[in-house]
Amino acid sequence: MARLSEDEIIAKLFAPLAGVAGLGLADDAACLVPPLGQDLVLTSDMITAGVHFFADDPPDAIAAKALRVNLSDLAAKAAQPLGFLLSLGLPGDWTLVWLEAFAAALGRDAAAYACPLLGGDTVKMLGPLTISITALGAVPRGRMVPRPGAKAGDRLYVSGTIGDAALGLRLRRGMPADAGWIGRLSAEAHDFLAARYLYPQPRLALCDALRAHARAAMDISDGLAGDLAKMLRLTGVTAEVAFADVPLSPAAREALALAPELASVILSGGDDYEILAAVPAQDSAAFEDKAAAAGCHMTAIGLVEARGGPPVFRDRAGKPMLLAAASFQHF
Amino acid sequence: MARLSEDEIIAKLFAPLAGVAGLGLADDAACLVPPLGQDLVLTSDMITAGVHFFADDPPDAIAAKALRVNLSDLAAKAAQPLGFLLSLGLPGDWTLVWLEAFAAALGRDAAAYACPLLGGDTVKMLGPLTISITALGAVPRGRMVPRPGAKAGDRLYVSGTIGDAALGLRLRRGMPADAGWIGRLSAEAHDFLAARYLYPQPRLALCDALRAHARAAMDISDGLAGDLAKMLRLTGVTAEVAFADVPLSPAAREALALAPELASVILSGGDDYEILAAVPAQDSAAFEDKAAAAGCHMTAIGLVEARGGPPVFRDRAGKPMLLAAASFQHF
Repeated sequence: MARLSEDEIIAKLFAPLAGVAGLGLADDAACLVPPLGQDLVLTSDMITAGVHFFADDPPDAIAAKALRVNLSDLAAKAAQPLGFLLSLGLPGDWTLVWLEAFAAALGRDAAAYACPLLGGDTVKMLGPLTISITALGAVPRGRMVPRPGAKAGDRLYVSGTIGDAALGLRLRRGMPADAGWIGRLSAEAHDFLAARYLYPQPRLALCDALRAHARAAMDISDGLAGDLAKMLRLTGVTAEVAFADVPLSPAAREALALAPELASVILSGGDDYEILAAVPAQDSAAFEDKAAAAGCHMTAIGLVEARGGPPVFRDRAGKPMLLAAASFQHF
Repeated sequence: MARLSEDEIIAKLFAPLAGVAGLGLADDAACLVPPLGQDLVLTSDMITAGVHFFADDPPDAIAAKALRVNLSDLAAKAAQPLGFLLSLGLPGDWTLVWLEAFAAALGRDAAAYACPLLGGDTVKMLGPLTISITALGAVPRGRMVPRPGAKAGDRLYVSGTIGDAALGLRLRRGMPADAGWIGRLSAEAHDFLAARYLYPQPRLALCDALRAHARAAMDISDGLAGDLAKMLRLTGVTAEVAFADVPLSPAAREALALAPELASVILSGGDDYEILAAVPAQDSAAFEDKAAAAGCHMTAIGLVEARGGPPVFRDRAGKPMLLAAASFQHF
């Protein structure tokens, strides 16, 4: 297998992904002219094999996850992508075939999301494949949608469907405890959930709707239950959410019918990369319309309430649900 | 040993380092108002235990290296730091004592270099400690000092002294082949070289001098010989450098006197984090004065020549030196 030097990797595989500000990846740094009258929105996420993905996931899925988890943060802030920097820690056994597939997938996403590569670093790791991406976005001055801000009376929305990726991870793990429902799941549902785990969909289409109407927003990366608690705690408010109001995909419904205990996985599992937003009640119709026009369905899941305390999820009988973990924590 | 959750690590150890744009590290992203009329300079470097540092290096040295290698890139571009994002991949055996020392050192550097923390990510790694930092700087519009641009007749300069860190790494490794000179090195020289490896000194004081006078610049991270070749190749020029003109610290001179073969290590070892610059001949006096006034001595090491080809280093007898490796490459 042919091996490229560090400089050749950069020149042959990554320089073609570079935007103007990336200077062909041939300088010490990128040089970006910030768009006039805009604020810069900056986010970094690191993903590492065995924790955030499986080392034998397809290289295009690893590339997609590395970039898209960052783009999801930009989407939640109503920011349009400007570009990204890539730090790539490669274990000793990398192959050219793998690296070409990884770079090609990253290039497709960079083009699809208008988010060119601006710079980065490629290093040898004495450990698992590890990727850190910093993404930059822009919002009109002072218009970033913050995470704090939810007020009593606001309507809470989530984009897309919840829990698919957490179920997809269960499929991928294939633990004996899950063998029952996994064995009876349709092939279509299996493929859908697996893809939702592998390929997050950053909801950048929501930027305009969020900027126009959301009082607060965040992306749901560590589970709806925990992330909702995080958002509401910042302004000392809470909410009650009926599980029946949480939008589920047909595949997730199928899994849930086979194993009702998956409700907890759906609410507290991670990797949704959907948007959670608090929208003033009087804006809710306009918000829903603008989101739908952008091709992204938003579902109202509850109302913000003035008192404090963690949000309560209620099952179909109206009983508070006991959730396994409030939110994913690395430690 | 007490363990903090991911959220507690961020709130207790890293939020105190956050600048205004970091929003207390309590949002999905940072929000930076870019300085008016300035370009943004962006750079990312990843360092990982066993490759860029030793896992048992002092935590303050690891923190210093992680941030300063990025600040060195900003310095080479004549950019003033605006802030940084930190991705921290922690192996399972981290301790609170270690993490507190790491965060405290990072905070001291953030303050000393006026480069606050803006955001980041803390994750569990199934491998060695790995840190990726993205640093942002600012230069007046269109005034970033590029890496390409050296012209025939320009004078080549390096800041500080060359080769100290590469010798410091030899000391740290303590290989049998080096036992002779290491054993006879003075304690002062040993400590100086070891510190030069552990604590890079980003030459941010040079920003004004570089911006005013340098046609091209880069930071020397992978060895003077290789990095000089990289810079000159970009404009199809070359240079001859007399080894006697390369600035050496008293400690490096002491080592070299004990083992003359270290000349190759000095020229092609890495981790100098000094600045290499090409300055038009008519600007050289003003450049030297401005750098000296900023507390940073620049040494002229040669003249850019119109022909192509790799630069040649000549020993005291005038003979071309054979260098072990042109430049450090991870692969």
